[in-house]
Amino acid sequence: MDYKNSGVDIEAGNEVVRRIKGLARGTHTPGVLSDLGSFGGLFALADRGLRNPVLVSSADGVGTKLRLAFMSGIHDTIGADLVNHCVNDILVQGAEPLFFFDYLATGRLDPDVAVKIVEGLARACRENGCALLGGETAEMPGFYADGEYDVAGFIVGAVERERLIDGRSIVAGDVLSVIPSSGLHTNGYSLARAIVFEKLGLGVHDRVADLGLTVAEALLATHRSYLGLLRPQLPSGRIKGMAHITGGGITDNLPRVLPDGTGAVVQHGSWPVPPLFQWLQRAGGVPQEDMLRTFNMGVGMILIVSPADSADVLAALAAAGEPRANVIGAIEKSSASAPVVRYQG
Amino acid sequence: MDYKNSGVDIEAGNEVVRRIKGLARGTHTPGVLSDLGSFGGLFALADRGLRNPVLVSSADGVGTKLRLAFMSGIHDTIGADLVNHCVNDILVQGAEPLFFFDYLATGRLDPDVAVKIVEGLARACRENGCALLGGETAEMPGFYADGEYDVAGFIVGAVERERLIDGRSIVAGDVLSVIPSSGLHTNGYSLARAIVFEKLGLGVHDRVADLGLTVAEALLATHRSYLGLLRPQLPSGRIKGMAHITGGGITDNLPRVLPDGTGAVVQHGSWPVPPLFQWLQRAGGVPQEDMLRTFNMGVGMILIVSPADSADVLAALAAAGEPRANVIGAIEKSSASAPVVRYQG
Repeated sequence: MDYKNSGVDIEAGNEVVRRIKGLARGTHTPGVLSDLGSFGGLFALADRGLRNPVLVSSADGVGTKLRLAFMSGIHDTIGADLVNHCVNDILVQGAEPLFFFDYLATGRLDPDVAVKIVEGLARACRENGCALLGGETAEMPGFYADGEYDVAGFIVGAVERERLIDGRSIVAGDVLSVIPSSGLHTNGYSLARAIVFEKLGLGVHDRVADLGLTVAEALLATHRSYLGLLRPQLPSGRIKGMAHITGGGITDNLPRVLPDGTGAVVQHGSWPVPPLFQWLQRAGGVPQEDMLRTFNMGVGMILIVSPADSADVLAALAAAGEPRANVIGAIEKSSASAPVVRYQG
Repeated sequence: MDYKNSGVDIEAGNEVVRRIKGLARGTHTPGVLSDLGSFGGLFALADRGLRNPVLVSSADGVGTKLRLAFMSGIHDTIGADLVNHCVNDILVQGAEPLFFFDYLATGRLDPDVAVKIVEGLARACRENGCALLGGETAEMPGFYADGEYDVAGFIVGAVERERLIDGRSIVAGDVLSVIPSSGLHTNGYSLARAIVFEKLGLGVHDRVADLGLTVAEALLATHRSYLGLLRPQLPSGRIKGMAHITGGGITDNLPRVLPDGTGAVVQHGSWPVPPLFQWLQRAGGVPQEDMLRTFNMGVGMILIVSPADSADVLAALAAAGEPRANVIGAIEKSSASAPVVRYQG
């Protein structure tokens, strides 16, 4: 008996490493001191010139959006979903990304699929100025069905300590400005798939008349990165807090950044809920409350700013290419035991 | 339809977060600025007093050792395997761990099992002085069989740049000193399981006479951390290179740290191959070459030191509680296109 007979193909693993080394190199930034294949990925922090750096890190997966990749055979966009999700999660605290690691696990390693996934990771890393510094590719016979895999990402960024955004200065009267999402991002896919594939019985290449898109086009739309848009806003200190709207929706994510003694009021109808969400709600008969706690409903990122700064922030976002940012509510005083979101209208 | 009907239980997820927050807090070190639940985990690097820090990071999984956890119902040691594997991977470059993130994915979230896994992670983090700073728990209906899960870990450590161990000073004549492993660690499990369960038809609780242990005891032995033993050795600068013997065995891991123009000669018989490996080889009829490229064969960590320092290093390891470290070979000049290991005897 040997390892290959037991289901693990070391040569396939080595082939993947050879092919992705160049992809990873294309993402390297000045701090990177190592190539793929060293035991640890090396990043020299001094190159960033931070006096008092706080490292800001996050781990994430893509969830069952992966099933859309399996069904459609499109494997080169999942990586961007993962990287951009991670980039946004550390951006809410004012951090810019330094480097990224992936974990890719599969039952039987298909080098072509693995390389497609890493192409997506590498492209998004490059777009975000984030080095793809390493990762782990695990072949685990019997753990994943044929043609399936799971992928997780881990990002490390940094911010000067006095520029850390921690929501501490948020007070009643502050304004909630939102930047649109680019689709479901990476959350709510178990529900969306149940509606689209089980209830409606659609196929992944079927056209949805209400959307003018195929199911794959609608549901695989890439999770947007907000870094390019918001990076120029960070030095001003005008952004008091940010919430990245992921699993749990506005309902569960916005309270995560609010200080005790405050809450948020969100006005229904103050932002356009994109057709995709309206269609899913109608087709699934999903109660509004569940929609708001499952999907981002068109709101990808919420910025909390003083009312005095609100117009300037919106104007800067418009000038940077995002004219659709708008105000959907405000911070209020609250005597609840923990911050909550109240919906009005 | 709502999210729970589609197979995702937000309340179970929240219960897990509540129960593991305390476990994570118990691992916090002075640099930690955030609790579980913030978008990004925050770590203030200044507290470490490094002048020119290099961040050293790694991502890893536990591989199919997980199946032993599933079969035996023992879920609280897998976390230590993962943390210790990651700690060792960055230790080979001279880094001490700062913080750790986990990614736990399952088909249906069982809060009791998830908490057991995190207990193992947290205990090992505490033992290694590494903060469990965050993680992601993903419930992915249909991706994992009932009662199964996958878990990955990401570690970030740091080292003063002039103390980075990169193998650059390794020359012919340097000595290979090895520290024993504590079992299979986290590699070779697909082959080991094929031998033990398929070929021999044993059950996980069966006793193996040759070993005086049950299958579960033998195969779930925790991957050892070498940090406590080697940390006191780092400031001396005597260790020129280290190789953590993981997937690929001595054959594939030792060359990863050797400079071009060198190779390694390893003497068969110079270290005791533990009974577990002998038993697997005999039972599986596995060729010696495959054994050396699949399993660690009792060698967990290889240190490369100058012959003048070798006795001092072994004496220091013995004084620190590891009298079994010994020399198994040396570095030689090589004209091969890339460093390789040659076995003698």
